[in-house]
Amino acid sequence: MRLNADECLVRLQRAEHGVLATVHPERGVDAVPVVFALAIGPRILVPIDTVKQKTTTRLQRLVNLEHDDRCVLLVDEYSRDWSALWWVRVHATAAVLDATLAPLFERYDAYREPGTIAAIIELTPTLITGWSA
Amino acid sequence: MRLNADECLVRLQRAEHGVLATVHPERGVDAVPVVFALAIGPRILVPIDTVKQKTTTRLQRLVNLEHDDRCVLLVDEYSRDWSALWWVRVHATAAVLDATLAPLFERYDAYREPGTIAAIIELTPTLITGWSA
Repeated sequence: MRLNADECLVRLQRAEHGVLATVHPERGVDAVPVVFALAIGPRILVPIDTVKQKTTTRLQRLVNLEHDDRCVLLVDEYSRDWSALWWVRVHATAAVLDATLAPLFERYDAYREPGTIAAIIELTPTLITGWSA
Repeated sequence: MRLNADECLVRLQRAEHGVLATVHPERGVDAVPVVFALAIGPRILVPIDTVKQKTTTRLQRLVNLEHDDRCVLLVDEYSRDWSALWWVRVHATAAVLDATLAPLFERYDAYREPGTIAAIIELTPTLITGWSA
């Protein structure tokens, strides 16, 4: 039922989206759906894009990470058949990069257009765990 | 793009699973996939069950909530068509109940069997927000 490290990375590589949880100074926690790409290290790259509609790219997740850089990326698959359930969880520290990086362009068609990524949150994993039914 | 409160509740009612984020005393945050049911109030009922395989029902999410009762339930839909994306986020405080409650039995077939729910985390929303592309 526990997934080993290699199995976790394979499932992260295949998954197209996850949930990023951060520490919120007043509300305790925050969570938001994100797309991402796995890069060598392993590192995980989470874009702040200009594609999905938003009022600002100065997002709460960035404010939260400035205050506390610890975060979690959770990737999971839900099915009515509970024997097919699984999840992978990455505890990480986050840094915000100005540069844009190739793995995200290659992964999501929308990012092939120049200027679609405003910044990247780079996650450095501190603990990767996973579970499968 | 912002969903109003009614629309958020309708989407919560329809969704079959979400991610529960809690405050972790050392790691900052934690996140785990959960099933849930909406109850009157509104309240949100998250079961600790004996169905999905686990080593203990004394789960880290319960330890976290004992330490800090603030949490977030995030429900979201991912699609490669980004114009179909949406999410609903519930900031809440949590209390752990011993009793089992009807909405969960009615919702998931696995819970019709007696003894399948060990405890329930009851979320009292403090803020409900939602977004749709």
